[in-house]
Amino acid sequence: MPPTIVDIQQAAERIRPHAHRTPVLTCSYLNEQIGANIYLKCEHLQKVGAFKFRGACNAVFSLRDDEAARGVATHSSGNHAQALALAARLRGIPAYIVMPSNSPAVKQAAVAGYGGQITLCEPTLAARESTLASVVAATGATVVHPYDDDRVIAGQGTATLELLADVPQLEMIVAPVGGGGLICGTALAAKGISPSVRVIAAEPELADDAFRSLESGVVQPPRPPLTIADGLRAALSERTFAIIRQHVEQIIPVSETGIITGMRMIWERAKQVIEPSAGVGIAALLERQAEFAGKHVGVILCGGNVDLDRLPWQVG
Amino acid sequence: MPPTIVDIQQAAERIRPHAHRTPVLTCSYLNEQIGANIYLKCEHLQKVGAFKFRGACNAVFSLRDDEAARGVATHSSGNHAQALALAARLRGIPAYIVMPSNSPAVKQAAVAGYGGQITLCEPTLAARESTLASVVAATGATVVHPYDDDRVIAGQGTATLELLADVPQLEMIVAPVGGGGLICGTALAAKGISPSVRVIAAEPELADDAFRSLESGVVQPPRPPLTIADGLRAALSERTFAIIRQHVEQIIPVSETGIITGMRMIWERAKQVIEPSAGVGIAALLERQAEFAGKHVGVILCGGNVDLDRLPWQVG
Repeated sequence: MPPTIVDIQQAAERIRPHAHRTPVLTCSYLNEQIGANIYLKCEHLQKVGAFKFRGACNAVFSLRDDEAARGVATHSSGNHAQALALAARLRGIPAYIVMPSNSPAVKQAAVAGYGGQITLCEPTLAARESTLASVVAATGATVVHPYDDDRVIAGQGTATLELLADVPQLEMIVAPVGGGGLICGTALAAKGISPSVRVIAAEPELADDAFRSLESGVVQPPRPPLTIADGLRAALSERTFAIIRQHVEQIIPVSETGIITGMRMIWERAKQVIEPSAGVGIAALLERQAEFAGKHVGVILCGGNVDLDRLPWQVG
Repeated sequence: MPPTIVDIQQAAERIRPHAHRTPVLTCSYLNEQIGANIYLKCEHLQKVGAFKFRGACNAVFSLRDDEAARGVATHSSGNHAQALALAARLRGIPAYIVMPSNSPAVKQAAVAGYGGQITLCEPTLAARESTLASVVAATGATVVHPYDDDRVIAGQGTATLELLADVPQLEMIVAPVGGGGLICGTALAAKGISPSVRVIAAEPELADDAFRSLESGVVQPPRPPLTIADGLRAALSERTFAIIRQHVEQIIPVSETGIITGMRMIWERAKQVIEPSAGVGIAALLERQAEFAGKHVGVILCGGNVDLDRLPWQVG
């Protein structure tokens, strides 16, 4: 059984002392471009700069004290690693983070900065999984997967509870899809509160495994990691795929050019630093403008962690 | 007589239907770095991306109908030009903007985009002033100076009314100083509402004419325009200097390195796109940390208009 609306509401209570209630911004230029009323849910202003903190925090604070005392563990080189490390620090328990040895130094430093205990491994999925298994065997830590976990999905859904509370007239919500944690939480929260709200996923064309999974009815493997939206390169799990099939109306694949255009528009016009994965939702609006015209549309700006020395519109 | 607190409160009423009430953000990383509670007043999220809209809007909507019908005029290549153009459009009157012929095309396009009628001139102060005089002679338009104008100063002060309403425990406010419109409005509003609040100006060392003016007791001419904080290259007027002498506690000159560091910190940690002029206030916090330690400090992030193809940390 996927998380219920009650699970998501309980997650909201659980993370309330720790997470930001992020603001919703509007941008008249964007509204004019799309011909719609767009509401930007600012998860790039969440702790660690991404929605991932919600799910990690809910998972960490859901543990019984005896489980929690042994710590939590994951393998990740992305925002989930930082999110889990911070959530564990807030509960006062260890976080064991397995990271590939080619992870950027800045990402390792961020995890360490939140108190995460890093174990480096070879940069293969097999090495990540076997290293994580060793860490768990040695510590008894609880694994918190970045998205294939009901507590994580429920946590991600709390952003949509807030969005619908702030913008009750919402008719559609757009969120990006990578492994599916955010879009599943979004869809479950939206359907639980307001079943008429249409939930739409946005996905890079270069990482369109979710789109192809829905088309084929079977979870498709990820593509080679070519999209600049590096947060969205993961594949769905059976758990997230099942929720998406039931509750997500459609998946819009978007071009890399669209992602960069969308990201830059938010920087220039909304003055918000968002990462390429967050530009994916804006790209869906821009590339399928007619489908959103005249509507009240929420878009989840999922994160803002980006290398300011290497912006996508400056890279050849 | 400088604007009173009543003038500023009336300005707030006058611009309320047109201007954004901008949010106040906090950033735990910044608080940790300074050892203080910093409140960021987000004027980069104001219309046209800068506080300048407040003053221009107050000036435009202060005009009698017969004056207004003849339009408004200014010479500016910066945010004031866009602000005046938009304010005039909102009142349905012409805005005549004299711009130097070497103004970047993107700035000319922005003014034109808000409906401003541009007259280009030679890029000298003499040419700007004589061209403006011709435009005024031909049209009967009212000149709205970017800062040497009580209506403009009162309008800029409205940001501080909002900031003090949102953060009543504020002990200090930092704002950048160029020509002085923002710092004067800030000081008059703060002293009017809460006389114990200390108002501090921040200024690039490379454009420290305000600092030297206070030291010498006489308005000093501007330095060559070398600072990257291009919004702060203007000189004080006698009007703004008199207000600063009376109400501003000190002027902190900051290094160019500090400006870039401060700007980048806000991009990276607060995820906000601010322009170098707004980084000047953050630089003052970073370079004079001890003076702010333990305090509740408001900082006015004055604007967010920046060329995303040419960021200061990427330019040699």
